Amino acid sequence: MAYDGTAYCGWQVQPSGITIEEVLNRELSKLLGEEIQVIGASRTDSGVHSLGNVAVFDTRTRIPPGKLCYALNQRLPEDIVVQSSCEVAGDFHPRRCYSEKTYEYRILNRQIPLPTLRKYTYFYYRSLDVAKMQQAASFFLGEHDFKSFCSVKTTVEDTVRTVLSCTVERTKDDVVVICVTGTGFLYNMVRIMAGTLIQVGIGELEPDDIAKILAKRERSAAGPTAPAHGLTMIGIAYGQPF
Amino acid sequence: MAYDGTAYCGWQVQPSGITIEEVLNRELSKLLGEEIQVIGASRTDSGVHSLGNVAVFDTRTRIPPGKLCYALNQRLPEDIVVQSSCEVAGDFHPRRCYSEKTYEYRILNRQIPLPTLRKYTYFYYRSLDVAKMQQAASFFLGEHDFKSFCSVKTTVEDTVRTVLSCTVERTKDDVVVICVTGTGFLYNMVRIMAGTLIQVGIGELEPDDIAKILAKRERSAAGPTAPAHGLTMIGIAYGQPF
Repeated sequence: MAYDGTAYCGWQVQPSGITIEEVLNRELSKLLGEEIQVIGASRTDSGVHSLGNVAVFDTRTRIPPGKLCYALNQRLPEDIVVQSSCEVAGDFHPRRCYSEKTYEYRILNRQIPLPTLRKYTYFYYRSLDVAKMQQAASFFLGEHDFKSFCSVKTTVEDTVRTVLSCTVERTKDDVVVICVTGTGFLYNMVRIMAGTLIQVGIGELEPDDIAKILAKRERSAAGPTAPAHGLTMIGIAYGQPF
Repeated sequence: MAYDGTAYCGWQVQPSGITIEEVLNRELSKLLGEEIQVIGASRTDSGVHSLGNVAVFDTRTRIPPGKLCYALNQRLPEDIVVQSSCEVAGDFHPRRCYSEKTYEYRILNRQIPLPTLRKYTYFYYRSLDVAKMQQAASFFLGEHDFKSFCSVKTTVEDTVRTVLSCTVERTKDDVVVICVTGTGFLYNMVRIMAGTLIQVGIGELEPDDIAKILAKRERSAAGPTAPAHGLTMIGIAYGQPF
């Protein structure tokens, strides 16, 4: 599932506004003539974008699984596009099996904003030291208690997660891209990681402060939550690790 | 001037809808307390984007020229952002002196659209042969009569123009980028060049057909006008050539 999150109140159905899940349920139900309820892999926040989220549902349809995305895309608005569709095992649950999820947080780091990037990057004009941010990012690697990098609104008790990769690069277009892959993420985790890496980038924190912040296990130790529109769900790889 | 052209009826003031020029004139006049009338370098069409268009105007303001862009950006909508401002000679006219203008035409060339690129690329699902398009592009180089690559709606009589560079590349994100630099362009010229290069990319035309189309000097010989939203005015370099 690729989508432009700008116009949506995130993935999950909720009373306050229209969500990606709601549009999918509605259009799939109409297309297939059955009541469809999708299960999403990444329940992205309001304003977050996606290139590769995953949704799973049960159906009795006879439309070939690989063709379903074309039929569905005919009905979806232009800001939601299914990239591919396939049949999975009946007991497959997109959040309950091993997966590696990748997110990118994109920061437009220059003096003056660019209108064509305004919806897909967080504009930040103070100059960021990307080498220091990359050093800091390496402290996230491995299994840690990420409680400091989790919204206090969470209901999750186990806040230990594994980050497999975390890189920071500057493109030729002044976009600083933070790319994180992990086997699971807490509520707002990538956005708080990004907000904290920005503090390293401007010299408010040193790279090895990340280790100290992790050790504190409290949200107030980390930096601010970076805005949602800079975040994109890139993709999810399923299957056991080597 | 950078702008997202999605919401505008192009650059030039006209009765049928709001234009970039109109917004600039209105906000500059309010900011400076004088009646301001800008002169644009590239009068981009409805829906065309810009990273580097140029606008010039006369003013008696005492705001330092380099600071003017910051003051103006405070008033402009988020889809129009002045990238820099400076004083120029009193007789400088942005369309009457030697300049090298660069445009990019961007084509998203894959099976299925991507929502986050839908406003800034032309989605085209048939596979494009970029090597052939690049061969074809080389026929545009130099001074030619581009009458075949000019909208019939034009009022211009001299249709000879010089193309300094024309490259075609595929990015890792499946975007085919046609980048054209020239000392002047006709009405719809880049969009007709793009539409014709696409025909080469799918094998409807051979690269050397470009020479034949140029020789015919009639609009109907060239390919279709590619849609406006794939086009971006990249920048303008002023000054005499070597």
